[in-house]
Amino acid sequence: MTSGLTDSAFLADFAALSAIGATAAGGVDREAATSADGRAREWLRDWFFHHGLDCRVDAVGNMYGCAEIVAGAPYVLLGSHLDSQPTSGRFDGAYGVLAGAYAAAAAASRPEGARFNIAAVNWFNEEGSRFSPSLMGSAVYTRKLTADAVLDTVGKDGITVREALQSIGFHGGDSPPQAGAFAEIHIEQGRTLIDQDLDIGVVTENWAAYKYAITVHGEQAHTGATHMRYRRDALVGASQVVLAVRAVADEFGPDTVLGSVGSFTVEPNSPVVVPARVRLAADLRALDGETVEAAHRSFLQRISAITGAGEVRIDIESAALRPSTRYQDAGIALAGGVADELGLRWRTLPTMAGHDSVNLKSLVPTVMLFVPSVDGVSHNENEYSTDAHLLAGLRMLTATARQLVTGALEAATLP
Amino acid sequence: MTSGLTDSAFLADFAALSAIGATAAGGVDREAATSADGRAREWLRDWFFHHGLDCRVDAVGNMYGCAEIVAGAPYVLLGSHLDSQPTSGRFDGAYGVLAGAYAAAAAASRPEGARFNIAAVNWFNEEGSRFSPSLMGSAVYTRKLTADAVLDTVGKDGITVREALQSIGFHGGDSPPQAGAFAEIHIEQGRTLIDQDLDIGVVTENWAAYKYAITVHGEQAHTGATHMRYRRDALVGASQVVLAVRAVADEFGPDTVLGSVGSFTVEPNSPVVVPARVRLAADLRALDGETVEAAHRSFLQRISAITGAGEVRIDIESAALRPSTRYQDAGIALAGGVADELGLRWRTLPTMAGHDSVNLKSLVPTVMLFVPSVDGVSHNENEYSTDAHLLAGLRMLTATARQLVTGALEAATLP
Repeated sequence: MTSGLTDSAFLADFAALSAIGATAAGGVDREAATSADGRAREWLRDWFFHHGLDCRVDAVGNMYGCAEIVAGAPYVLLGSHLDSQPTSGRFDGAYGVLAGAYAAAAAASRPEGARFNIAAVNWFNEEGSRFSPSLMGSAVYTRKLTADAVLDTVGKDGITVREALQSIGFHGGDSPPQAGAFAEIHIEQGRTLIDQDLDIGVVTENWAAYKYAITVHGEQAHTGATHMRYRRDALVGASQVVLAVRAVADEFGPDTVLGSVGSFTVEPNSPVVVPARVRLAADLRALDGETVEAAHRSFLQRISAITGAGEVRIDIESAALRPSTRYQDAGIALAGGVADELGLRWRTLPTMAGHDSVNLKSLVPTVMLFVPSVDGVSHNENEYSTDAHLLAGLRMLTATARQLVTGALEAATLP
Repeated sequence: MTSGLTDSAFLADFAALSAIGATAAGGVDREAATSADGRAREWLRDWFFHHGLDCRVDAVGNMYGCAEIVAGAPYVLLGSHLDSQPTSGRFDGAYGVLAGAYAAAAAASRPEGARFNIAAVNWFNEEGSRFSPSLMGSAVYTRKLTADAVLDTVGKDGITVREALQSIGFHGGDSPPQAGAFAEIHIEQGRTLIDQDLDIGVVTENWAAYKYAITVHGEQAHTGATHMRYRRDALVGASQVVLAVRAVADEFGPDTVLGSVGSFTVEPNSPVVVPARVRLAADLRALDGETVEAAHRSFLQRISAITGAGEVRIDIESAALRPSTRYQDAGIALAGGVADELGLRWRTLPTMAGHDSVNLKSLVPTVMLFVPSVDGVSHNENEYSTDAHLLAGLRMLTATARQLVTGALEAATLP
């Protein structure tokens, strides 16, 4: 760990952080509250300590590195998440946490004109791969979920969030700092910025998303001894569901609707047994609410057609809508001004993926920034952003934080 | 455990055996060399001991309950397998082992006229769900696989056969008895006998089967941030493979070709990650070799069409043919004669599913018998055969064993 807040210190620290839970192919495997996530958190706590930030950990494992500049004032929070998908890239989330820590430490060192306090933040379980749903820590902070509901959530390995956080020593008891504003910087995870040779994206709104939990029910049978006409094969039905999701995405033309099935678990999953059940998670996304609702209706019709054939039964256990909402216009204007001042090439754009800032923007004025992703690759060990873009983003976040601390968005209206 | 060899003793013993690894829904979960399989094996070893059969365990966990009647003579082996699919029925395999034990003990108690010795047998890992391939113990006995290759096989939980057998105390050191003939009785697992109100099936040949190990390769990506045109979704390709298998089965008309994908594992299997890989096991089956080869060619063409679309790459890691071969005619005739003598209603029929007798019939004259399955249900906790059919099958096997011990098939020619 380095002591100054220089560019070379940032890159060295980012390399040290990326080594925790590193995979052979250059990515990381740091799912929420695993031992690798625990070691990354210990590293961040040490960083906070060595840079004069007071570490607080709340009940759901959110970590805050706080600097009180104006006694009793709310905090500008800066950060993202350290947890990762299984075998994923090293930039997703972690870059934003470290940039937030650097920007917070820089702001704390310039108290003149401050109207707010400052804190770096690492939100718990943004990814949602071990414990569902995603954006968990920021959802508790913004009161969309209760801490008890989150702590009782059972993960894919049968362990609760409470047990997992206790096992890594991050089931904390501190009160979280009260937010006055939030800023997050993240890799874009798409190709817009890289294809247009830009440095910074200022996010205007999030895509709407429907997320589905679905179970397809068939009847367990012998693959070798059961004639086809007697079969009720859950895997055949679930495969039709996967292709229905793809067909919905195709139906709306290029770059309009996204649709995927990411998790898909077959039971009993033996070579000579006709599957009895498939549990799957699907999503459909579009920029605007009208389009995502149309995609949702098309998907339901296609599900009806599959069950209408009579082989399988399909339960849609949940269909949760994350609506498209805007980031505050004042924050967008502020970020644009900062980018111009720094001589960075920038544009506004929506975010297709969800981020903790989507939760925070319903609570406080929120600025969401992107840096370019090479080839738009993400949730993949080959995820990559250049040092130059990482450092430009750090300058951008640091200058934005300075504006926020001096009260630039104090008058911003919530949506 | 009971002492006599009466019908009521058999039903009581079968109930006691079925209680080992029992599931709430009336089935069993006794995958090969699990602790439940170990307890079933201990129960059988005790049964052998209490009925005067000398228990031998070979290197791959095959168990033999031996009675030497004629010093130095080969053995008539009678049996099947105690292992099960995960959450499966209680009759599949276990019925044949217990019936074999009863028939062996009965034959041992009537030494007059014997030209062979007699042994009950429990073949290791017939099911192939924990360790692949299926029919493992009988394949080593008939020298289709080596013991070392089997012992080094790693199961789905990362444990080798050697370690698993050692952990339950059944990695034995005994020489197996030399076979002179084999007889197996099993539930039909289909509807032919029950629909025609028959007591016994005499098996003439096995269906041919192609078994495939396939990996579909895509490119891991973010489900929320990656436009559809950039995706290479392994789950979409694998779903097309599942539907291709079904299409091949449909192509050949009713009751001609069976096709299924039973195991199907998605990586990394996270709700917001486009799947990178799917590993799956498929099978195609038909009565005759010509039809199964035609089905195989159709499947390969359909795989080419899927990869031709350019989204995924498909590796067929193995495509193993189990050919259709006949059981010895002399054995079929002998069984028919025994059934007539006992006044049982019977017919000849092929077996669609694989059995240990498919391995044994290439080594020694082999008789394969079926009892009816209610509704043809198998590899399912609702698998059921009536007490009357179980007891008729036991009489049939006992009388057949008596014939075999007295040398009725000594002159039978191997195929």
